[in-house]
Amino acid sequence: MRIVAADTGGAVLDDTFQPLGLIATVAVLVEKPYKTASEVMVRFANPYDYDLSGRQAIKDEMELAIELAKKVKPDVIHLDSTLGGIEVRKLDEPTIDALGISDRGKEVWKDLSKELQPLARRFWEETGIEIVAIGKSSVPIRIAEIYSGIYSAIWALKEAQEKGHVLVGLPRYMEVSIEGNKVIGKSLDPREYGLFGVVEFEPPEGLRWEVYPNPLVRRFLIFEVTSKH
Amino acid sequence: MRIVAADTGGAVLDDTFQPLGLIATVAVLVEKPYKTASEVMVRFANPYDYDLSGRQAIKDEMELAIELAKKVKPDVIHLDSTLGGIEVRKLDEPTIDALGISDRGKEVWKDLSKELQPLARRFWEETGIEIVAIGKSSVPIRIAEIYSGIYSAIWALKEAQEKGHVLVGLPRYMEVSIEGNKVIGKSLDPREYGLFGVVEFEPPEGLRWEVYPNPLVRRFLIFEVTSKH
Amino acid sequence: MRIVAADTGGAVLDDTFQPLGLIATVAVLVEKPYKTASEVMVRFANPYDYDLSGRQAIKDEMELAIELAKKVKPDVIHLDSTLGGIEVRKLDEPTIDALGISDRGKEVWKDLSKELQPLARRFWEETGIEIVAIGKSSVPIRIAEIYSGIYSAIWALKEAQEKGHVLVGLPRYMEVSIEGNKVIGKSLDPREYGLFGVVEFEPPEGLRWEVYPNPLVRRFLIFEVTSKH
Repeated sequence: MRIVAADTGGAVLDDTFQPLGLIATVAVLVEKPYKTASEVMVRFANPYDYDLSGRQAIKDEMELAIELAKKVKPDVIHLDSTLGGIEVRKLDEPTIDALGISDRGKEVWKDLSKELQPLARRFWEETGIEIVAIGKSSVPIRIAEIYSGIYSAIWALKEAQEKGHVLVGLPRYMEVSIEGNKVIGKSLDPREYGLFGVVEFEPPEGLRWEVYPNPLVRRFLIFEVTSKH
Repeated sequence: MRIVAADTGGAVLDDTFQPLGLIATVAVLVEKPYKTASEVMVRFANPYDYDLSGRQAIKDEMELAIELAKKVKPDVIHLDSTLGGIEVRKLDEPTIDALGISDRGKEVWKDLSKELQPLARRFWEETGIEIVAIGKSSVPIRIAEIYSGIYSAIWALKEAQEKGHVLVGLPRYMEVSIEGNKVIGKSLDPREYGLFGVVEFEPPEGLRWEVYPNPLVRRFLIFEVTSKH
Repeated sequence: MRIVAADTGGAVLDDTFQPLGLIATVAVLVEKPYKTASEVMVRFANPYDYDLSGRQAIKDEMELAIELAKKVKPDVIHLDSTLGGIEVRKLDEPTIDALGISDRGKEVWKDLSKELQPLARRFWEETGIEIVAIGKSSVPIRIAEIYSGIYSAIWALKEAQEKGHVLVGLPRYMEVSIEGNKVIGKSLDPREYGLFGVVEFEPPEGLRWEVYPNPLVRRFLIFEVTSKH
């Protein structure tokens, strides 16, 4: 099975570790044996001016996933919304009302579906590829999340050259390390069986970085970059 | 403490990774230090004609657990239903109504208890051994689950000789490996502190197998067997 | 950020692994990189005469945290009650009613706050340090929990000299080991990224100990000490 999935992650934190906005939306193509991506596309957001409600993220994810899917022709697209795997093109009001989710979630999806449902339907009519709202159960979405952490670290390395000091909150239980000109992201959950990502990037001179637990949010790490100058 | 527990697991998957039916019910005797089984009994189901509602599984588990308990005389039997450790012989209608479970769960147990409650009462009267509905909290039930994964892999190795290609969904976060004439199952959750199982079995010639994440269900692995011919 | 946190843990178990009472309340100072404590205070309870409702524990934790905070002047105190990080000095009846917790939890906190709210307000007025009810999300609380496991093991080593045999239930997914004159506690969850604690203690002669899974409570270990005499 060839699956395209998208996710958004990595958050700029202020000095009290509060998130200001998200950094990177990533779409990935994942193929057997389903441990990393064989194609990756990234789109950076402006974390200093970000809609933290989650609506912007899911729109960005669907757009980027469709862009990658047009190129690689997967069997299916996974979207990071946990609606039991329902096809997004079928999400009309009565169907949303029948979902086993909170009233708040229903309101959000009724709003979102005005834009996303026609997009999904059109894409399906043109390509036969379904976009399913499978969310947390999907391994490819987790791999997209790991890549969003890698690209957030890369963003922080660039940003710290200007700002001197950057704090990034990585996605849940993943670490980032830098080996030579590779930035490597790894799941810290052994139950996920070795999910990882690698992106080539030469870190700029004159920076140091460290990775440590976010003291306010168990199982989440912080990637901190400081300029030596 | 000497505990007998039973569980059912391992699912035949179709080519889209959808489960068709469960493969193996296993009863185990678990003794201190509670990391593996000292006695094992297995009963294979017909996964191509399987009641996926879960009612068949729990009946099979109770029968097989009693069969093993008659032989090894444990202190208690653990059943894989999460009812807070209540004794199954006490599960009459008013008691079930008073449980803190869903209405759906109550209906299922009212139905199940017609058969299981008298069986548990009779077994207790004869032996003094309680059967308790402890479910997910029990380590021996997890060990039975790991053995059900091992036996599902063994089933797949035999089945692939005929069918040429078999996909099995293993129980949650466990892996299976084959070393010589041993099939080994291990929990992937380090918090479980090294739970494992070993079954002697010589894999047939002419097969290859691989283990990889189920892309549709995070933290579950697939055991795939293919005939080389 | 310099954080003081407190937690209570380690339970004396009877021979059927049922908890009798809790053993140790620990307050810790945690500083960057947030993996262990730089200061520790412990208060032992009488586990054979213990209020298992949890009310005694939280009072002990707040008292001990304040005692440590007076000495080390942290930025904030974390209390092990999961109320979304609200400041304890603000917990009056209308505020408690507005919390998204169970009715039972509201009753307990209305009772507790009579004592704890004035204590927190007075401490804040004197020092400017907030006490926040952040609970399970806090890494320093987890570190305090790990230390409570270490001190429970130390308590068991002393107790076994008199009693001959002691069973202690350790806090969730942590192990205790003894190397020379150090008792070491480690989280078993790799997603927590290496949280640990170390306490100097020379184990008395003539004892042996082992660590193994509690068969009745998955992901919890037992520390058992037996006198060789």
